[in-house]
Amino acid sequence: MRKMISMQLQEVHALSMACLLANGCDPENAQAIADQTTKAEGDMCQTHGLFRIPWYVGGLRSGRANGRARPWIEHLAPAVLRVDGDNGYAPLGLLAGQKPLADCARKNGVAALAFVKMFHVGALWPEVEALAAQGLCVFAFTPSYPFVAPAGGSKGLYGTNPMGFGWPRKDGPPLVFDQASSAMARGEIQIAARDGHPVPETAGIGPNGETTTDPNVVLAGAQLGYGGHKGASMAMMVELLAGAMIGEFLSIEAAEDDGGEGGPPKGGELILAMDPVRFGDPDGFLDHGEKLLSAILAQEGTRLPGARRMAARKVTPERGIEVPESLYQTLQGFTT
Amino acid sequence: MRKMISMQLQEVHALSMACLLANGCDPENAQAIADQTTKAEGDMCQTHGLFRIPWYVGGLRSGRANGRARPWIEHLAPAVLRVDGDNGYAPLGLLAGQKPLADCARKNGVAALAFVKMFHVGALWPEVEALAAQGLCVFAFTPSYPFVAPAGGSKGLYGTNPMGFGWPRKDGPPLVFDQASSAMARGEIQIAARDGHPVPETAGIGPNGETTTDPNVVLAGAQLGYGGHKGASMAMMVELLAGAMIGEFLSIEAAEDDGGEGGPPKGGELILAMDPVRFGDPDGFLDHGEKLLSAILAQEGTRLPGARRMAARKVTPERGIEVPESLYQTLQGFTT
Repeated sequence: MRKMISMQLQEVHALSMACLLANGCDPENAQAIADQTTKAEGDMCQTHGLFRIPWYVGGLRSGRANGRARPWIEHLAPAVLRVDGDNGYAPLGLLAGQKPLADCARKNGVAALAFVKMFHVGALWPEVEALAAQGLCVFAFTPSYPFVAPAGGSKGLYGTNPMGFGWPRKDGPPLVFDQASSAMARGEIQIAARDGHPVPETAGIGPNGETTTDPNVVLAGAQLGYGGHKGASMAMMVELLAGAMIGEFLSIEAAEDDGGEGGPPKGGELILAMDPVRFGDPDGFLDHGEKLLSAILAQEGTRLPGARRMAARKVTPERGIEVPESLYQTLQGFTT
Repeated sequence: MRKMISMQLQEVHALSMACLLANGCDPENAQAIADQTTKAEGDMCQTHGLFRIPWYVGGLRSGRANGRARPWIEHLAPAVLRVDGDNGYAPLGLLAGQKPLADCARKNGVAALAFVKMFHVGALWPEVEALAAQGLCVFAFTPSYPFVAPAGGSKGLYGTNPMGFGWPRKDGPPLVFDQASSAMARGEIQIAARDGHPVPETAGIGPNGETTTDPNVVLAGAQLGYGGHKGASMAMMVELLAGAMIGEFLSIEAAEDDGGEGGPPKGGELILAMDPVRFGDPDGFLDHGEKLLSAILAQEGTRLPGARRMAARKVTPERGIEVPESLYQTLQGFTT
């Protein structure tokens, strides 16, 4: 058993800030990253919380990521915006782009944001939720590093390439999902390797394309898309949308740029926002969505995507969260 | 073995026209449907070729589908169009909407088309390909009938809900995929039931949520999403986009509307088109996409989505295609 220690969310925020400020972030960038880190911990989404601070710090220390980035926005077309991340981390650029994108979607009915020259090591759900909470229907896509084999192939080529989707709800926070194109998260496979557990045969293949349940063999080989070739198609799509189309790195290019250092991946993100009010049923769409969601929940054994995070969000502000002591010590070491 | 007969593509077209004209279609609607049917057969995509003509005829004979539909277009927002299908079949409305959508995407960078009041019994790839062949990056979504259980549930709620995606290529036809949110196509499960073959455990569950490999039990129960809960999320998303957002039927509502007759599903479709030229790398995006596709094909055992259809398309204009004699006889019976 790993030893865990308890933290309050304000301590999560303060520790994140201290790590980032001590390693080259200015206050604006540090605050945006610390806010997202705290949100993730508050939702008990540990894989995208404090666990990621060493990545942020690593990118700052290597000099690849700009801790003093000043993202800037331009209009590429009436319904297309671009945020240039100034080689910084995603959170500050996402804050900068959020209102212009929402305004553009409301004006035109649909709008796109091409986010380039940035490092994305967080989840997609924070930006999807922030826009969907304003009444918009949202897609987000981003590539990463080439861990996932194309259908029929055996070498990593696609990132785990998440796709996020958000839909506004009548009462309360929006419905949001954020799912990797790979069958398993890379972190889950790494944890299985650490703990000596097998993984499902669908998770990945060995270096010669062989079937395996050994996580170490998968890590030496390639992950597979969810549902086989269909997940691989989704991963390919994400490379085209958030790489080729917006002039940013494919996952294979991000790996070349990183030079195998294993630092945060540099690249792009594409966000599409639609204003459902402009799609022909302004007075009905919210109730109509609720009808579907109610029908889902009427079936025993179901829950909506994000339900676990929403439940965690209600209790963590009082109860706090738990962090592995080893991670806590690592982060303390970053603060001086 | 089923007895097959050979047909040339012009015979496919003529037979389709005859079936449709004899059952209440006017020439414009019949031609649009026959063109799509012939395209599907020419690509050896038999599940969406002549096999679907009995559905078209059934909807015409029951009086639900309007064979003389005159689809019309309106602007709902600067980047949002709506095609009202006038309760007809999708092909004529898709023809009507194609150029306005492409023009709107070029003008704004991104545009959406909400297609309502129509019956869609074809594949999504024809409309995706037609737009992507004009240089656009395209999404399409449509619900159907409630065959697929939500994650954790046991009753059909979502349609098999395909999502289509298209990307323009430098030379030759665009890259297109068109994949159901369900693990298997419903037709494949029906064929397994007919032929007495088992289906994978991932295909579906029995009426009480039990694991099964018996296709008849799946047909009495519910299909499952591809890759488990992730495919189910995609199916949910399609219901929200092409149902709730555009004011059209959810799959459960389409089934109610049909009254369990098993006719073609009435409903909507959402198409999103982006002009990559307006996303920041107008001179580079095509080569950049080709770099990814070349890297895929450099791996042994891979092929691109749609490759089988493209190969078929090259040979069927000369060789013709094969059709089950029983289907041929059925269709002949529709022509008088």
